[in-house]
Amino acid sequence: MAVAELNPAFTKTHLHSSQLSFLSRSVPTHQHCAFPTLHRNQQHARISCSVTQQNQVQAPAVQTQEPNSKSDCYGVFCLTYDLKAEEETKSWKKLINIAVSGAAGMISNHLLFKLASGEVFGPDQPIALKLLGSERSIQALEGVAMELEDSLFPLLREVSIGIDPYEVFQDAEWALLIGAKPRGPGMERADLLDINGQIFAEQGKALNAVASRNVKVIVVGNPCNTNALICMKNAPNIPAKNFHALTRLDENRAKCQLALKAGVFYDKVSNVTIWGNHSTTQVPDFLNAKIDGLPVIDVIKDRKWLEQEFTEMVQKRGGVLIQKWGRSSAASTAVSIVDAIRSLVTPTPKGDWFSSGVYTDGNPYGIAEGIVFSMPCRSKGDGDYELVKDVIFDDYLRNRIAKTEAELLAEKRCVAHLTGEGIAVCDLPGDTMLPGEM
Amino acid sequence: MAVAELNPAFTKTHLHSSQLSFLSRSVPTHQHCAFPTLHRNQQHARISCSVTQQNQVQAPAVQTQEPNSKSDCYGVFCLTYDLKAEEETKSWKKLINIAVSGAAGMISNHLLFKLASGEVFGPDQPIALKLLGSERSIQALEGVAMELEDSLFPLLREVSIGIDPYEVFQDAEWALLIGAKPRGPGMERADLLDINGQIFAEQGKALNAVASRNVKVIVVGNPCNTNALICMKNAPNIPAKNFHALTRLDENRAKCQLALKAGVFYDKVSNVTIWGNHSTTQVPDFLNAKIDGLPVIDVIKDRKWLEQEFTEMVQKRGGVLIQKWGRSSAASTAVSIVDAIRSLVTPTPKGDWFSSGVYTDGNPYGIAEGIVFSMPCRSKGDGDYELVKDVIFDDYLRNRIAKTEAELLAEKRCVAHLTGEGIAVCDLPGDTMLPGEM
Repeated sequence: MAVAELNPAFTKTHLHSSQLSFLSRSVPTHQHCAFPTLHRNQQHARISCSVTQQNQVQAPAVQTQEPNSKSDCYGVFCLTYDLKAEEETKSWKKLINIAVSGAAGMISNHLLFKLASGEVFGPDQPIALKLLGSERSIQALEGVAMELEDSLFPLLREVSIGIDPYEVFQDAEWALLIGAKPRGPGMERADLLDINGQIFAEQGKALNAVASRNVKVIVVGNPCNTNALICMKNAPNIPAKNFHALTRLDENRAKCQLALKAGVFYDKVSNVTIWGNHSTTQVPDFLNAKIDGLPVIDVIKDRKWLEQEFTEMVQKRGGVLIQKWGRSSAASTAVSIVDAIRSLVTPTPKGDWFSSGVYTDGNPYGIAEGIVFSMPCRSKGDGDYELVKDVIFDDYLRNRIAKTEAELLAEKRCVAHLTGEGIAVCDLPGDTMLPGEM
Repeated sequence: MAVAELNPAFTKTHLHSSQLSFLSRSVPTHQHCAFPTLHRNQQHARISCSVTQQNQVQAPAVQTQEPNSKSDCYGVFCLTYDLKAEEETKSWKKLINIAVSGAAGMISNHLLFKLASGEVFGPDQPIALKLLGSERSIQALEGVAMELEDSLFPLLREVSIGIDPYEVFQDAEWALLIGAKPRGPGMERADLLDINGQIFAEQGKALNAVASRNVKVIVVGNPCNTNALICMKNAPNIPAKNFHALTRLDENRAKCQLALKAGVFYDKVSNVTIWGNHSTTQVPDFLNAKIDGLPVIDVIKDRKWLEQEFTEMVQKRGGVLIQKWGRSSAASTAVSIVDAIRSLVTPTPKGDWFSSGVYTDGNPYGIAEGIVFSMPCRSKGDGDYELVKDVIFDDYLRNRIAKTEAELLAEKRCVAHLTGEGIAVCDLPGDTMLPGEM
C-alpha cells in the first residue's frame, strides 16, 4: 500500500540529492511547528521538517483537514540541517527513527529522555522520536515535546507527534509499543485481551504498511505477549523474529532477589531466564541461573525458597511497589526497556543471555509453536537474536513451563479473530494478570 | 557538633583498616534492610551497610526508637563488598555520596535514575544515593529504593533513605535540595519564603554538622535563590562558593527559544546567561549570547522581540507547560540539574559559560554583595567555578539586572530571621513566582 493512499495529504516525489529529505507544507496549514523557519534551499519562507527516508519527499501545500491527526514535527525539531556538513556531527551515524506509543504516559516520560540522552544507542547515534498519543493526550504530547526541546539533547534531532499510527510509524526502525488501555472496573481478562488486541492489530497493520521493513518492535502494553502476537500476525511483511514482548523487568527483578538471598551484589547474577507469559504464570528460571559463575542451586541451597518465595516475589513485586508508591513502576520499567534495546544492539557478554518474549516457531525447547513466549536469547549486537541452546530442564521447570504455555495457547484462541485464525474461543484459566502491570 | 550528639544511636569508633567501613545494627532493630546478609568479616549474621567515610564507623547494637527517622540502607544496597577486589571494578574511582531531598517527588524520580545510570558522573564513578523524604513520603521512598534495586545499575552501590537530614546528609559530597513545600491556596509569598526558608535553614545546619567539608549544594526547591542563601548562612563551615541555586532550566529554555527564532538547531547557541533571581524578574541575557559564534543581536535583528517576547517566553515557559501537561516540568528540570552538575565536574568548553545562582561576594559586575544571584560561570571541572569577567552591559541589561537585584535584596530582608541578620522586614514587590515552579 502506498503512503499516498493512506494519507492523501502527502505524495512522494524524488526531489533532489542532498543528504536530508523533508516533508514540508505551507505555513498556514501547519499546526505544531510554532516557529516558522527558513528552509535553506528555498527562496521563500516555509516550515520544513527533516526526516530520514531513503526516498526523498516533498509534499505540496495541502489544506489539512484534521491537524491533530497528523504526525508532525514539533518546534525546534522542525528545522532542517545537514549533519554531514558540521565538524561536530559529521562522524555520526545515520539518524534512526524511533516510534513510541503511549508517549504521553509515565513509562514513556522516563524512556523518551533516556533515548534522547544517548544512553541507549550511544553518543554518535542521532535519533528521531515519533510520538504516538491519543486524541485525549495530544496536549500532553505537546508538553512532552516542549520538555524535550528544553532539554537541548544534541543527539535528538527530530520530534514529531501524532495520533495516527500510519503517520507516526512512517519509516520507524524501532517501535516501542507502550500504550494500552488499563483494565477498567469489572472488566474480564477476555475483554482486556479484545480491547487491547484491537489496538495492537491496528498498530501491526500500520507497521506493516509504513514502517521500515526491518523494524524492531518491543511490546510493553499488557497483556504484552499476546499483544505482540497480534501485532506480528497483522504485519506479515515484517519478519516474525522482529517482535518482542517485554519480560526484562521480570528478569531484572529476579536477578535482584537472587542477589539479595545470596548476599551478593546484583552484578554477580547472570543467565536468568524468564520463561513464558508476562503474567503470574511466568517462570523465573533458577535452574540455569548463575551467581558468580556457579549454579544458583549450588549457592542458594534452599529449593523450597527458590520454588515458592523467590518465584512469588518476582511475580508480586509490581503489586508491592504499587502499595508503597501508589502507582506502578514507571522508572524501572523504562530502565528495563533500555536494557532490552541495548541487549539487541550490543553483543551479549560471553556465556550470558537475556530474556525476551519472542515467537516460538523453530524453538529448540519443545514449546508449542505459534505463540510469543519469553525465552533465553543472545545477540551479536545487530538488532537480531538467536535462542540459547545450552539450557537444562528438570521436572519442576518443565511443569511450570507447560502451565504458562497452556495459558498463552488459551490467550491465542481468545484472540483468533484478531490474528486471522478464525473464531475466538475464550477458555482462559484463572486471572493471571500481574498486579499493577498497566 | 559531634555526630553522636545529634544521633545518640550512633557512635564513631575507629574499627579496622579494610577499605570499607560500615554502619551496622543488630537484625531485630533494622527496619528497611528486608534481607539480612552475612557480613563477610563477622562470625555471626548481621545486616551491614557499607558507607564511604574517612573515619570508619561501627555502631553498637542499639534499640532504635523511631525506625522511620533513620537514614538507612535499603535491600540489596545493604551489602558490603570491596570494589578494589573485583576485576571489573578495581579501576573505579572512590565512591561518592549524593544526598537528594524531596527524593520521593517527580523531579527526583527522574534525577535519581540518571545519577544511578552513570550518565552524570561517568562510567567509572560508583555512587551512593542518600534519599531524604518526609514522614508522609517514607513509604514512597521505599518504593523508589525498590525500583532502584530492580534497575540493576552497576554503579549504584548504596541507597539509604531517611527523614532526618542530620543522618541522610552524613558525609554527603553533593546535596541536591529539591524538596520544598508548594505554595498553598491564599499563601502570600512572604509565607512561602518563611516556610521553605525554615526547611533550608535546618538543612543548612545539618549539612554544616555532618556533610563533607567541601559538599557542593544545588538548591532546586523554590524560591531557590533565597533558599540557597538561607542554607549557606546556616552552614558557616562550608565554603559559600559551594552553594548554587538552579537557573539552568531557564538557561536551557532561553537557548531553545533563541534557536527557534534564528532557525538554527539549539546546539548552535552559546554564552547564554540568566541573571538574577529564578523568578519572573530573571534576565535572560541576549546581549552576550552567541549563535554560531556571532552575537545574537547580529543574528536576530529584532530588538523588540528580544526585549519583550523572548524574555517573556523564557519566564512563562513553565506555566505553558503546566497548561499542556497538567503538571510541572519534572523531566526537563531533572535534565537541567544533570547539566548543572556536569558543568561543575567537566571543564567548560573554551569561550563558553553556564549560568548558576551563586553568592555575589566579590563579583566583578557591581551587583550587591550578600545575595545568591544567577551569573555566568566557568569551571575547570573540579567542582568549583569562577565568574566570567568578559561580559558586556548596556542600559537595558543594567536596568533589568537592577530590578532582579532589588527583588533579591527584598527577599533577603524578609528572611533576616533565618540568616542570623536580625529582624525580618517583608517589603516584597509584586508576585514574581514563576508559574508552576513548585
